[in-house]
Amino acid sequence: MAAILPELATQVVIPVAAAVGIAFALLQWVLVSKVRLTPERGGEAAGKSGGPSDYLIEEEDGLNDQSVVSKCAEIQNAISEGATSFLFTEYKYVGLFMGIFAILIFLFLGSVEGFSTKSQPCHYSKDKTCKPALANAIFSTVAFLLGAVTSLVSGFLGMKIATYANARTTLEARKGVGKAFITAFRSGAVMGFLLAASGLLVLYIAINLFGIYYGDDWEGLFEAITGYGLGGSSMALFGRVGGGIYTKAADVGADLVGKVERNIPEDDPRNPAVIADNVGDNVGDIAGMGSDLFGSYAESSCAALVVASISSFGINHEFTPMVYPLLVSSVGIIACLITTLFATDFFEIKAVSEIEPALKKQLIISTVVMTVGIALVSWLGLPYTFTIFNFGDQKTVQSWQLFLCVAVGLWAGLIIGFVTEYYTSNAYSPVQDVADSCRTGAATNVIFGLALGYKSVIIPIFAIAFSIFLSFSLAAMYGVAVAALGMLSTIATGLAIDAYGPISDNAGGIAEMAGMSHRIRERTDALDAAGNTTAAIGKGFAIGSAALVSLALFGAFVSRAAISTVDVLTPKVFIGLIVGAMLPYWFSAMTMKSVGSAALKMVEEVRRQFNTIPGLMEGTTKPDYATCVKISTDASIKEMIPPGALVMLTPLIVGILFGVETLSGVLAGALVSGVQVGNLFRILGFTFPQIAISASNTGGAWDNAKKYIEAGASEHARTLGPKGSDPHKAAVIGDTIGDPLKDTSGPSLNILIKLMAVESLVFAPFFATHGGILFKLF
Amino acid sequence: MAAILPELATQVVIPVAAAVGIAFALLQWVLVSKVRLTPERGGEAAGKSGGPSDYLIEEEDGLNDQSVVSKCAEIQNAISEGATSFLFTEYKYVGLFMGIFAILIFLFLGSVEGFSTKSQPCHYSKDKTCKPALANAIFSTVAFLLGAVTSLVSGFLGMKIATYANARTTLEARKGVGKAFITAFRSGAVMGFLLAASGLLVLYIAINLFGIYYGDDWEGLFEAITGYGLGGSSMALFGRVGGGIYTKAADVGADLVGKVERNIPEDDPRNPAVIADNVGDNVGDIAGMGSDLFGSYAESSCAALVVASISSFGINHEFTPMVYPLLVSSVGIIACLITTLFATDFFEIKAVSEIEPALKKQLIISTVVMTVGIALVSWLGLPYTFTIFNFGDQKTVQSWQLFLCVAVGLWAGLIIGFVTEYYTSNAYSPVQDVADSCRTGAATNVIFGLALGYKSVIIPIFAIAFSIFLSFSLAAMYGVAVAALGMLSTIATGLAIDAYGPISDNAGGIAEMAGMSHRIRERTDALDAAGNTTAAIGKGFAIGSAALVSLALFGAFVSRAAISTVDVLTPKVFIGLIVGAMLPYWFSAMTMKSVGSAALKMVEEVRRQFNTIPGLMEGTTKPDYATCVKISTDASIKEMIPPGALVMLTPLIVGILFGVETLSGVLAGALVSGVQVGNLFRILGFTFPQIAISASNTGGAWDNAKKYIEAGASEHARTLGPKGSDPHKAAVIGDTIGDPLKDTSGPSLNILIKLMAVESLVFAPFFATHGGILFKLF
Repeated sequence: MAAILPELATQVVIPVAAAVGIAFALLQWVLVSKVRLTPERGGEAAGKSGGPSDYLIEEEDGLNDQSVVSKCAEIQNAISEGATSFLFTEYKYVGLFMGIFAILIFLFLGSVEGFSTKSQPCHYSKDKTCKPALANAIFSTVAFLLGAVTSLVSGFLGMKIATYANARTTLEARKGVGKAFITAFRSGAVMGFLLAASGLLVLYIAINLFGIYYGDDWEGLFEAITGYGLGGSSMALFGRVGGGIYTKAADVGADLVGKVERNIPEDDPRNPAVIADNVGDNVGDIAGMGSDLFGSYAESSCAALVVASISSFGINHEFTPMVYPLLVSSVGIIACLITTLFATDFFEIKAVSEIEPALKKQLIISTVVMTVGIALVSWLGLPYTFTIFNFGDQKTVQSWQLFLCVAVGLWAGLIIGFVTEYYTSNAYSPVQDVADSCRTGAATNVIFGLALGYKSVIIPIFAIAFSIFLSFSLAAMYGVAVAALGMLSTIATGLAIDAYGPISDNAGGIAEMAGMSHRIRERTDALDAAGNTTAAIGKGFAIGSAALVSLALFGAFVSRAAISTVDVLTPKVFIGLIVGAMLPYWFSAMTMKSVGSAALKMVEEVRRQFNTIPGLMEGTTKPDYATCVKISTDASIKEMIPPGALVMLTPLIVGILFGVETLSGVLAGALVSGVQVGNLFRILGFTFPQIAISASNTGGAWDNAKKYIEAGASEHARTLGPKGSDPHKAAVIGDTIGDPLKDTSGPSLNILIKLMAVESLVFAPFFATHGGILFKLF
Repeated sequence: MAAILPELATQVVIPVAAAVGIAFALLQWVLVSKVRLTPERGGEAAGKSGGPSDYLIEEEDGLNDQSVVSKCAEIQNAISEGATSFLFTEYKYVGLFMGIFAILIFLFLGSVEGFSTKSQPCHYSKDKTCKPALANAIFSTVAFLLGAVTSLVSGFLGMKIATYANARTTLEARKGVGKAFITAFRSGAVMGFLLAASGLLVLYIAINLFGIYYGDDWEGLFEAITGYGLGGSSMALFGRVGGGIYTKAADVGADLVGKVERNIPEDDPRNPAVIADNVGDNVGDIAGMGSDLFGSYAESSCAALVVASISSFGINHEFTPMVYPLLVSSVGIIACLITTLFATDFFEIKAVSEIEPALKKQLIISTVVMTVGIALVSWLGLPYTFTIFNFGDQKTVQSWQLFLCVAVGLWAGLIIGFVTEYYTSNAYSPVQDVADSCRTGAATNVIFGLALGYKSVIIPIFAIAFSIFLSFSLAAMYGVAVAALGMLSTIATGLAIDAYGPISDNAGGIAEMAGMSHRIRERTDALDAAGNTTAAIGKGFAIGSAALVSLALFGAFVSRAAISTVDVLTPKVFIGLIVGAMLPYWFSAMTMKSVGSAALKMVEEVRRQFNTIPGLMEGTTKPDYATCVKISTDASIKEMIPPGALVMLTPLIVGILFGVETLSGVLAGALVSGVQVGNLFRILGFTFPQIAISASNTGGAWDNAKKYIEAGASEHARTLGPKGSDPHKAAVIGDTIGDPLKDTSGPSLNILIKLMAVESLVFAPFFATHGGILFKLF
């Protein structure tokens, strides 16, 4: 029985959905660009583009102060230039590494059949003829480079959009919080839709182009396509680690001296690290995240495709069900498009308190709409029953069962997200309890914070376990793969919300630096605070999907490497398991130490400037921003290589020396341990700053405390009683500890577990042929 | 081919070795007791017993000040009474829990064959007849209670010895550091030998008594004996958790207010929490540790015995090779006895700098002597070749191969120990680097400290992985079991060193409280500091052996539950794996939060007393010690139940609801993740205080800094330059964070992974018959 949707329709639907996504992104860009940054004809231009009605809800003076506009433009340029220059430096080094790795891929995979150009019997069905390993080597290498370049472009475009939007958000904040919200959110949407749609489009084109050569050999085709996932996530790893070190070194350095020692507000232009901090937001939080989420998307699609190639529709060559994963993503773009309209057009934000609910509603609406979309695509795009042949298992699946798999992933992501919110938002008791503990100092704060972090891992793990169990029971590894895809299907909305946060953060920084009035800063801070909470929710999807994707890739690897079982009780597997479980710690040690060292240098430089530059504290002299930018740049370029190499080389070394059994142990160990540690870091990273906010409400000493009280911090916060600035300092210490966990180590761990799995899968034919030389020798 | 040693000789050797150990412990006690605590006839009594030559090396005045002696005796009594009263309260609650659990064991195991009294075909060899499940239920329950009681008595005796010895150590410190060292070390040895020998003796007697009923049915016999391990480690869990919460609540509370806020020295009698702190050292560090190490010993012996019962000598009923694990322990006692003489009789400590090397030499000497001992016992006690039938595997093993298994465990323990020392001692660069980071405050200190902790996990994991691989390759699961036994074979020396630390610590506390001269305090502090480093080494054995023991028990469980493979890629196993890997975090969240809450209460009480009791800071009024003791007692009794229940009930719930496959996943997950987290916490726990020491050398503000500089802290420490008290405060914050990791969460995690494994093994027949009802229902 075939799918309802004919191949031709599918071939139209996917590129059209991608094109709609890209068009929508461009439309949002046009809307954002109507906010003019050129002061000369500012009033006139704005009037022309936005319509005269724009000015009717004018709430704030300073709107016609054209000097502010040019100041904002100037700061935006400085940030944009800093970010561009860093990214080019980063890409130069990473490009070299990727080039070498591409050669390795070609050599290793080509050597499987000794670079023979003859066709061979297929791996899974020996009676058919498949393309030679050399073709696999070439196409995998090409796919790898394609993935890397797409990921790189995604990150770069994201950064460009963000730096384009931040000053515009500041300027819109003069008109009210609603206007500013829409500008920041639209900019986030540009990035979200552009990335999701271009990722889909590139993958679709690659499949069709590769397909010209591969023809009937779908096994080979989708094996080669896996290189795309590897390229995407390798790039993501370096982007995350490099950007993460950059941004956190600047952030920690700026905060520890500025906020704690000198008692000046965040983003104060007197702080020498302030430009580096703002550049960091764009290269780490935006470009890094863009690469990261693109990598997740590419991997989950590849995992689903490669697993699906060994199914009844793979063997019968039914195109529509084969590209079901891409159909899900296509519907996802449309679902997210509808969702976005709820934030930008159907409703209007009028008060600060409406921002966070509006963002949360985005996640809920997209999930609900997407559930309908999945049902539709499962009904149209799949045969009513089909068979999955993975793992020697022969599993008959019905289309509604596969719908359940995707849906359970989608909803589990939302649940993980809301659990994260519960543990990281100062609206609930966990964070309030920890804030209480600041009364007795930083030590109890950290002990309680760690305890909260450990506890917060529990429910997400149960949610992940449940999704895995259900989807595996219904459709074996294919079920797990599509569950991951389900979790990521609303990626455009998730990315829009994620990007919205740093844009608002930067907008606030620009307001502060341009010396704009306090009310403007309050508005951007309110935008930022809401974004922080929802970013925590959004990142729940990332860690959950990482676990599912890795498991699916791991399954595909085991299947491809012809291992029948991964038995924990064989010594080869067990030592892999225990060493694999150690890798997240090793990796975290490297990244945390890197952030620490870079922050140390930054702190000393900032202190030095405050101590030696006369008039700096008084605001009469400008600090030396460039030195701080250079410290962050040098540190991140230097420090991103060792952790990156650890992740990229471990599968190679283990596979070559110890073989596929030990490697499968390593993958399983890294997966189960990495999910815990990654989850932990993510939640700790979001929690500590919230604790700081919560606790500082009690102190009253902190410059920014007021806005958080206005923003609706609870009665409870105030009952702690004023304690001077001690609880605040304890909280800032906690905050600083949380920073590298949230933005460097935590998100990189997601990539670690996926990357090792996809790399093992790409190299599986090589390991199966030439791996395990240590055991062969002895 | 039979072993060289005949059964009769074996039946003599084991109890004789145990008796020698007990006699040696009593001899040490007699030597310690020669230090008189009765002031009236003090000079006369000391002269009579110790010989007049004792007084020839008198170095310090105050030796004839009899009021000091009575003051010491008084303080010692207060501590001893507090500790005894706490332990009785604790044992009452735990006793209730254990009673209920014993009933559960009986009911669950009895129900396997419906409480039938008829003999059944054996589990492993169906052609033979074995004792009914009801007998297994009865004997397992008895063994469980026996293990619990032995563990309880071990902990209690340890505490009694320690509180007997601490004031005596203080008094001996008047005569010089060498005398004090010998008193403290002898007291540690009393505990070490008493526990090791009585554990061996009880096990030996139980095997012989149970054997009267079981006769030929060795499978049944050693299955029932496993209950002994379960009892021992259940008791250990509560001892560790309860004692750990007690001691750390008191310690953190006393330090945060006393040292940081009030700037008074440690153990100052003005600090209201000082008695609670000293009581805590005895109930947590001594009684808890005693129970813990006894549990490890009992479990590793049981694991080896139960695995060995399915071997050629198990089937041929060759007694000597069957009790090879007990022979190894017997030789261990003798080896440790010889080792002890090196510290107490062959050499004499004359300077402070000789203490740490002397303790380290103890570990090295015992390892070397024991290697010879193992060789001897393997040659005499094993047939030249024998066969292991575990896991369907039939593995022919030669006696020298089994020697290698035990030896690799023994030496891996030493390596893990020395790696721990490298990462936790301020003599090496890791700790010095982190101390550097205190210059920029507590936040960078914690970030660097965490990074160091993560990094320190790497080599121990490789060492454990190597031991597992080698021992498994040589002798399957039996090899792993005896490797664990090898790691623990020098337990008497390890325990002596471990117990020596808190005794010295308490001796210092008593000196401070009795108002003795500064030089006395310096000497006891030097003893304590050396003990801290070596305790870190000693605990390397604990975590390494926990991993090996759990794996062996896990293997036995899988074998007993008739699971053929534990395939990670089946959903039942995988969800177990990921949830199991989460358990150490859940458990740590509970214990850390407990310590945090109790410490919070303690801090507020201590602050309250300082603020409201007039004359307290001036030393004219006594603080209210009893309230602080009560806070610690109440908190630990209340808080130890939930984490204890989590560990004890998880295997039961998973086994009953999800069945043996999922349970085996949980065990594997908890094992690989628990080893990492446990290792991490242990090293972090030891590192942070060392960082504090290292960093405070730079500050000069800390009252106690001097002693550490005198004690040989490096040049490097001083180059950091004086910074006032800020680096010191940052370091104390780190120290406080490390405390619960070292003494509560960290050591309990070892127990967690072993306990879940041994419990699963005990309940395996029940789970195999009645387990997995959820999957049966759906």
